[in-house]
Amino acid sequence: MENSKVVKAAILIIGDEILSGRTEDANLSYMAQWLGQLGIQVAEVRIVADHEDSIVDAINALRHAYDYVLTTGGIGPTHDDITSDAVAKAFNVPIDYHPKALEILQAHYEEGEFNAARKRMARIPQGGVLIDNPISVAPGFEIENVFVMAGIPMINRAMLESIRHRLVGGAPVRSRVVAAHLAEGAVAERLGNIQLRYGRVSIGSYPYYRSSHFGTTFVLRSAEQDDLAAAFDDVVAMIGDLGGDPIFDELKVKPVK
Amino acid sequence: MENSKVVKAAILIIGDEILSGRTEDANLSYMAQWLGQLGIQVAEVRIVADHEDSIVDAINALRHAYDYVLTTGGIGPTHDDITSDAVAKAFNVPIDYHPKALEILQAHYEEGEFNAARKRMARIPQGGVLIDNPISVAPGFEIENVFVMAGIPMINRAMLESIRHRLVGGAPVRSRVVAAHLAEGAVAERLGNIQLRYGRVSIGSYPYYRSSHFGTTFVLRSAEQDDLAAAFDDVVAMIGDLGGDPIFDELKVKPVK
Repeated sequence: MENSKVVKAAILIIGDEILSGRTEDANLSYMAQWLGQLGIQVAEVRIVADHEDSIVDAINALRHAYDYVLTTGGIGPTHDDITSDAVAKAFNVPIDYHPKALEILQAHYEEGEFNAARKRMARIPQGGVLIDNPISVAPGFEIENVFVMAGIPMINRAMLESIRHRLVGGAPVRSRVVAAHLAEGAVAERLGNIQLRYGRVSIGSYPYYRSSHFGTTFVLRSAEQDDLAAAFDDVVAMIGDLGGDPIFDELKVKPVK
Repeated sequence: MENSKVVKAAILIIGDEILSGRTEDANLSYMAQWLGQLGIQVAEVRIVADHEDSIVDAINALRHAYDYVLTTGGIGPTHDDITSDAVAKAFNVPIDYHPKALEILQAHYEEGEFNAARKRMARIPQGGVLIDNPISVAPGFEIENVFVMAGIPMINRAMLESIRHRLVGGAPVRSRVVAAHLAEGAVAERLGNIQLRYGRVSIGSYPYYRSSHFGTTFVLRSAEQDDLAAAFDDVVAMIGDLGGDPIFDELKVKPVK
């Protein structure tokens, strides 16, 4: 049975490397689309440094504002991995070695390799429920509505599969996309009128320049199938009326960087 | 004369398309590195929807917390471009057509093409100072410590050049990078000790898996050149002591997605 409630999530990306620009985030787009398929809309993203107060403040702001919070990064064995401690502080609970996490890690390492730094990865805030990591074993954890996961994309994706059954989505939001070699400024008035007629459809327009053409990509989103189809027909009709040719090929309407 | 103060900025990315995951942000990494070269550290990033309250709240939180706020997105001619209005609301000032912006836009369009939607792009919050857009003319604007810019990467980059002389950076933060085929868990204790010795150097470690090797990239950052050099030497010595070969080639130590 489908839930008709809009379910919203925030993603919190933790790491100096993303903020410095040296590393490009490689999880956000994947996570947002993956959550979207479960009927969960990403409503906000924050990126903060490996700095305790910044993480605590972001966790507390986001967990009260949204149904779910998913975090990435900062749960490894080194001194700059402080996410678990910060989450414990945000929830005002103690943090300690989790027996099951210790057991999983102990079994994974050779005798003598399970040093103090690696043991740190078994520290979980009180009340945390482990998230399986089928790639490199060290678990994430869930506490209330916050899911704490690794930042390495391969591990992040595996952890998402581990939590899939724990997330309850709302009505899935579908999208329809069409583009045309028409400037945004030429379509804006008509497009605004279509938006006014369909309050339950979100209509976005995104300009592009390509092969010396101005153009606009139109992305329509809604949980209401009938409204979405009707609004889409109106946008396609508008394109024709303004002398454009609608481009339906999803690959061709991908935004250009 | 170099400013020794740490200067911090936040980036606010505005747009449903980034949150949905359909479009990958293409500005953050460039902007962060560009600001870093001016001695301005990006301390926080937020991504919010094309939704007035979300933009207002983010602007107000960030402009009080950081020296500068740079926004991208939402300043075009269509109904979903609401950034300028939201910024006016955040500053509690009126918004109206800016004579110079109107003049620039009017001169750009052919007779009859300068319609109401395009005129909207000349609406600037009271007190806003225009930011030149040498690509597609429609300006951004600066109000107090907030710089409102376009999201299209080509235009965003051009606008950054337009504001370069208005930003005052602190001591530039330099970085040194080295990698080794050593697991994070094997280096963590020694690395933590190096971090303890150099309080003014930020040492980050980033695990990778490549060609079936575990490895770690070490990124050291500091505004203090001598400390940076000394800490870097210690990390390189640590790699040798642990049986690794330091990899200095920046291309080879780029993170793998």
